[in-house]
Amino acid sequence: MNSFKNTLEKITVPQLVLNEQICRRNIRVMAEKARRYGIRFRPHFKTHQSKVVGEWFKEEKVISITVSSLKMADYFKDNWDDITVAFPVNIREIDTINQIAKHIRLNLLVESVDSVAFLAQHVKYPIGCYIKVDSGYHRTGLTVNQLETCDRIVELIQKDSNMTLAGFLTHAGHSYHSNQKEEYLQIFKETVHICRTFRKRYSSITKDLQISYGDTPTCTMVEDLTGVDEIRPGNFVFYDLFQWYLGVCRQEQIAVVMACPVVARHEDRNSFIIYGGAVHFSKDSIRLPDGRVCYGLMVEWTESGWKPMNKLVPLISLSQEHGILQVDEELMKQIRIGDLVGILPVHSCLTADAMKGYISLEGRVLDHM
Amino acid sequence: MNSFKNTLEKITVPQLVLNEQICRRNIRVMAEKARRYGIRFRPHFKTHQSKVVGEWFKEEKVISITVSSLKMADYFKDNWDDITVAFPVNIREIDTINQIAKHIRLNLLVESVDSVAFLAQHVKYPIGCYIKVDSGYHRTGLTVNQLETCDRIVELIQKDSNMTLAGFLTHAGHSYHSNQKEEYLQIFKETVHICRTFRKRYSSITKDLQISYGDTPTCTMVEDLTGVDEIRPGNFVFYDLFQWYLGVCRQEQIAVVMACPVVARHEDRNSFIIYGGAVHFSKDSIRLPDGRVCYGLMVEWTESGWKPMNKLVPLISLSQEHGILQVDEELMKQIRIGDLVGILPVHSCLTADAMKGYISLEGRVLDHM
Repeated sequence: MNSFKNTLEKITVPQLVLNEQICRRNIRVMAEKARRYGIRFRPHFKTHQSKVVGEWFKEEKVISITVSSLKMADYFKDNWDDITVAFPVNIREIDTINQIAKHIRLNLLVESVDSVAFLAQHVKYPIGCYIKVDSGYHRTGLTVNQLETCDRIVELIQKDSNMTLAGFLTHAGHSYHSNQKEEYLQIFKETVHICRTFRKRYSSITKDLQISYGDTPTCTMVEDLTGVDEIRPGNFVFYDLFQWYLGVCRQEQIAVVMACPVVARHEDRNSFIIYGGAVHFSKDSIRLPDGRVCYGLMVEWTESGWKPMNKLVPLISLSQEHGILQVDEELMKQIRIGDLVGILPVHSCLTADAMKGYISLEGRVLDHM
Repeated sequence: MNSFKNTLEKITVPQLVLNEQICRRNIRVMAEKARRYGIRFRPHFKTHQSKVVGEWFKEEKVISITVSSLKMADYFKDNWDDITVAFPVNIREIDTINQIAKHIRLNLLVESVDSVAFLAQHVKYPIGCYIKVDSGYHRTGLTVNQLETCDRIVELIQKDSNMTLAGFLTHAGHSYHSNQKEEYLQIFKETVHICRTFRKRYSSITKDLQISYGDTPTCTMVEDLTGVDEIRPGNFVFYDLFQWYLGVCRQEQIAVVMACPVVARHEDRNSFIIYGGAVHFSKDSIRLPDGRVCYGLMVEWTESGWKPMNKLVPLISLSQEHGILQVDEELMKQIRIGDLVGILPVHSCLTADAMKGYISLEGRVLDHM
């Protein structure tokens, strides 16, 4: 194994560096919380999309996972035999559904009568169906005003020999608009209440209907998750600057950093051009307290990894391959052309998806779907 | 070959559909303009990143190209023997530089004394050097206030036996903030003036110093490009909604469309959820005249491809895998779950980079690096 210094020396183009220790700690903390409240931990793998990182979850006794596409379910199906696709079922992929459901327990997400009617006609192997509940985010799912639609869906599922009603799944995405601990708790309570309304309506038909709850901010910020049967956070595995911005994590908990070569210096405007742009980071941003748009924050390299800086050094602009790093006069003097700078990403899921791979501190290459 | 209807029927997940006829027309129009003014056409391949699309340029007698990374130069080097990397040279990739320069004419972009001093020590094969000129965009390059720095760079290049000063390269990226024909012309004229200032300073040392000019908006909107030696537009090969938004192209000139399955309908809010999110489109957006943020616009499928709709039907939100399409009541009734909708991308370069491949109207799969 290399020392971290050796690993950095070998990097010539933008690379996403993964700190295994931070990542394993993030996994362990969430797994322990789920165990503490007797809740199934079904982590969302859309953030890391890595078989190697997946194994770290197995060491925490995780046996079921969430993904966001059938392609991702297919990628993980050799290692995991209980997978929920937390995305409204895409009936055009019926062949893929059957291929996967032949081998493992596959749970699909449904919210429309048409989709379920199609599945009833075409599914050849047992599948679990979660009904998507809209608990206030208003992206997808049924609200409590659509219980009659839900009745028709449940009826179609009940009549079919391959489909089983597994329960109700919700993603409280509106928690991403909060930044107060009390607000997360409030969202959690309301969501549980809504899901219970659905469950109660069908409890006489099917026992053990599950309430499946998503989103990293709530699962991190709410201590007592009693009331749901499983949690599906994803982003927490790496966290990122957006979670930091929301107050959900500290910078020290962010497990990935982009290593980017410095290719130009502009002393007249205290900025550097780094090799690292929209095709590497993707383009989500946050706004710093001083009003600047921020696509990433610089960290300080240490002997064994990195640590947050004691000042905010933001990536203020992204082109296709370039990024502009805005620094103070002290850093302007220190950083040279050809140096590598470490940048915490704003949205780790999208950055990992763009980079399609990781390098560990020891220089090991880790897979990404 | 399939009919287009057959091609669509086989699509099960988000795919980027390329209309070869529109694309070839875009290429031909730009090639003809360059020929008309006796200017070398060195198209930027960062938009399509495809060997197949590259061949269409060869049919227009193009013999030299531009790319945005050494990786891309490496991808194209078997088919093209004169490649400019229009990105400030990354000295950490010196081994790749030497590997490529051994086989083809490689032009690099320089703007700092340190980089050039490093190259002088490490380059083993002939390379051409373009000095990056900042003509007002202020991302990279030397301004006319930095002529002394330029002198030192030119001196280092002149002293080295492998390096040749090829000329001055500029990207008038600030043209993306314009939307008036007169403004594009003004930017073009100013840029030419600045580049000529540089050229004049060194014309006694080296003959035939080239002025290389970039950016799709100017190269499209300015008719007479006299004053530069070569043009390097890239985006024009596909165009996109951002260029449409700037008034640079019509929707009919956009050569790529995303085909996305419909996975949910929400009649209460006149919207559909499509399978197609940030990992497919990337996250650039424009603002419609009515104030809505727009990540894409729906088109109408025809027997042989697609055409613009007679109304604006925008993608108003993107999650990792989802998009929200906002429609009127008429479309709400027409579109069914399982349908494919066609969406023009806001930034075709980033969408193509995210999708990593194309399908032609006839169902042929085209490469992307």
